[in-house]
Amino acid sequence: MKIYKKSLAEMKKVVADYTSQTIDLKIEQAVSEIIANVAKNGDEAVRNYERQFDNVNLADFSIPEFQLDQAWESIDDDLRAALKLAKQNIISFHKREIENSFVDVSKPGILRGEKITPLASVGLYVPGGTAAYPSTILMCALPAKLAGVERIVMVTPPQADGINPAVLAAAKLAGVDEVYQIGGAQAIAALAYGTASIAPVDKIMGPGNIFVATAKKQVFGKVAIDMVAGPSEIGILADDSADADEVAADLLSQAEHDKRARPMLITDSERLAEAVAKSVTQQLTTLPRTEIAIAAVNERGFIAVMDNVNDMFALMNEVAPEHLEVQLASPIQYLGLIKNAGSVFLGRYASEPLGDYVAGPNHVLPTGGTARFASPLGVYDFVKRTQFIQFDRANLAADVPAITKLARTEGLEAHARAVEARFKGGE
Amino acid sequence: MKIYKKSLAEMKKVVADYTSQTIDLKIEQAVSEIIANVAKNGDEAVRNYERQFDNVNLADFSIPEFQLDQAWESIDDDLRAALKLAKQNIISFHKREIENSFVDVSKPGILRGEKITPLASVGLYVPGGTAAYPSTILMCALPAKLAGVERIVMVTPPQADGINPAVLAAAKLAGVDEVYQIGGAQAIAALAYGTASIAPVDKIMGPGNIFVATAKKQVFGKVAIDMVAGPSEIGILADDSADADEVAADLLSQAEHDKRARPMLITDSERLAEAVAKSVTQQLTTLPRTEIAIAAVNERGFIAVMDNVNDMFALMNEVAPEHLEVQLASPIQYLGLIKNAGSVFLGRYASEPLGDYVAGPNHVLPTGGTARFASPLGVYDFVKRTQFIQFDRANLAADVPAITKLARTEGLEAHARAVEARFKGGE
Repeated sequence: MKIYKKSLAEMKKVVADYTSQTIDLKIEQAVSEIIANVAKNGDEAVRNYERQFDNVNLADFSIPEFQLDQAWESIDDDLRAALKLAKQNIISFHKREIENSFVDVSKPGILRGEKITPLASVGLYVPGGTAAYPSTILMCALPAKLAGVERIVMVTPPQADGINPAVLAAAKLAGVDEVYQIGGAQAIAALAYGTASIAPVDKIMGPGNIFVATAKKQVFGKVAIDMVAGPSEIGILADDSADADEVAADLLSQAEHDKRARPMLITDSERLAEAVAKSVTQQLTTLPRTEIAIAAVNERGFIAVMDNVNDMFALMNEVAPEHLEVQLASPIQYLGLIKNAGSVFLGRYASEPLGDYVAGPNHVLPTGGTARFASPLGVYDFVKRTQFIQFDRANLAADVPAITKLARTEGLEAHARAVEARFKGGE
Repeated sequence: MKIYKKSLAEMKKVVADYTSQTIDLKIEQAVSEIIANVAKNGDEAVRNYERQFDNVNLADFSIPEFQLDQAWESIDDDLRAALKLAKQNIISFHKREIENSFVDVSKPGILRGEKITPLASVGLYVPGGTAAYPSTILMCALPAKLAGVERIVMVTPPQADGINPAVLAAAKLAGVDEVYQIGGAQAIAALAYGTASIAPVDKIMGPGNIFVATAKKQVFGKVAIDMVAGPSEIGILADDSADADEVAADLLSQAEHDKRARPMLITDSERLAEAVAKSVTQQLTTLPRTEIAIAAVNERGFIAVMDNVNDMFALMNEVAPEHLEVQLASPIQYLGLIKNAGSVFLGRYASEPLGDYVAGPNHVLPTGGTARFASPLGVYDFVKRTQFIQFDRANLAADVPAITKLARTEGLEAHARAVEARFKGGE
């Protein structure tokens, strides 16, 4: 892993290179054509793309309920227990995110409020092959359930040897209502626009390749989307007291996800920097996904040695990592210094994979610097708000001068006349 | 206005035509080139586009603070008072939306929580000419202030006779920190990517033409955006007791916004339907923006006569209007039937323009059917959440079997090893 010893200003330039984005017009156009075709031709278009891209001929996209039951029974006891533990903790954490409608009646004759309503339906994209993660199904579906969503739809690309039973078992445990074996941009288009066999949803979530991500971005507006997810990231803030092997192991836990994953260590200890770099090199050799992890470590990973703790946090806020570990003494005292991060892991025993699976907080997190403005997936992602007001005659009358003044200043005469219409003839 | 008397099923097909969307590849491509150019060439690219599109040669984009002060002094007393009233009520309503961080310490040795942090900076697009609304500046900037945003930037296209003083006065009153006279897709690109003279922001909000809307959609991911806003809509649910002239006046208050605005009445009274249609025709003739309103009424407006109140609400939920008036007796009893709407106006005296200006709830609302999943602009749009966990050794140890089982099921060996690293040598 490359070790930098530069000033904060210089390091900010280094990490800025890591967060730049580019627009790929060819992919945008290809995806746009797929979406237009599915919006127009429905099931037939989806079927053709599945033949073309996934090499399958599907009469029916649906996976029936009994196959989910069979999958749940087929997995081993340890996996069932682990999924159940994850479910329990995801629910106990996300329950705290449930929000209330409010009403303000502080002024007699005026009622103002905001009503919270669950989305009617959401769609969950689950990638195929080795990237099909049962844990992600729980992370996406359970907060939707807590929000009160009544229809949860899952799509996942067809597989030569059938859909992974662990994926179907997780869908069963999470209470997914409908499962379809379709994938790619055509699946996103089907969820957004609906087809004869798949009713449209109000929001689409879940990770996917560049075609899925681009399709989600393009249907945004027609439906809601969770986020445009990028490669995994882990940023670790550690001082000389941290254990180099543990830090290295945590960096590698994200490096193994994707060649473009970003493992990052920011420390004030040169000794730790060198020890972690050495340990990463050693541990890398024995990993099953070593090729992926090596690419991530060499091409996207870095270790930065900073002068002091404040600079460490300032640089990490610039990065805005998806996962942030704070391996410093009394880590909670630093929570106020963290401005931009998806999920924070405090102290030696909050190893990142704990949060990926069973701690309860979500593992669908903002990536690519978007933690500057975006949040983890949560119950709040599955509700919408509706404002309401009721005024009596006297309170409207009192506001007529201000309303008509503003309306006429903005050149909107019909706005002014609408409120004046209530007081014609002094009634 | 066209009056329909059809079944609910048939009417759902009619309103579906009103909510379809199309992708315009030419505009997408033109905007994509502008964004790429501004991202690469910064101020120089923005300056060239301003020359090309707005016919001005700008040495400096910035409007200095003293011009905002002058504008505030230059507007008349009634306008100042109206803006101040709007500000006061916007603040008193949106204060209720402020959310708290939470922490869960219900299990000894485990700490889990979610921290709420304001966005560092936001950008507000204000259209030029007659569509430059001072009220919208208050609606956008004040919730951001309440959230704790420290840098609010406004952009607005340069005008031959200078920026509207009411716009600059509203910016002053709302506490906008920086104002630049640039517009179009190039302004959105400058806010998203930053230039030498304009630092980038974390989120972009505010209405604009198709180029602005497309640019916002394309920079989504690099920054957050509020929504892709469409033409104004008003849906009115009224029974035979409603006043036809008042209903007609409220329909026209939205029709005057845009030729593509959608005024809609859903009623169970044929008498009211005909009386409203007649009153709309009469009132139309005397409106200053009559040409715009006529187009909206004829091309996009409709009146639907339904069999009963339940069908009225079912159809309106299908439409998911930006503004929804309930002109029925005891309107608040129907709040539970409203699933999809941006802002709801209950009863005769909650005329829509009341909400546009001074009632306090926001007037930046979901359009085009997006109220199915989107919310009014609020304080929650200007914060992000960061999860955090801390576990002690015993609690991590208890979860190791479940974590390693799930990790290895998902083929992520490095995830399993990271947690196991904490327990090497039984320490």
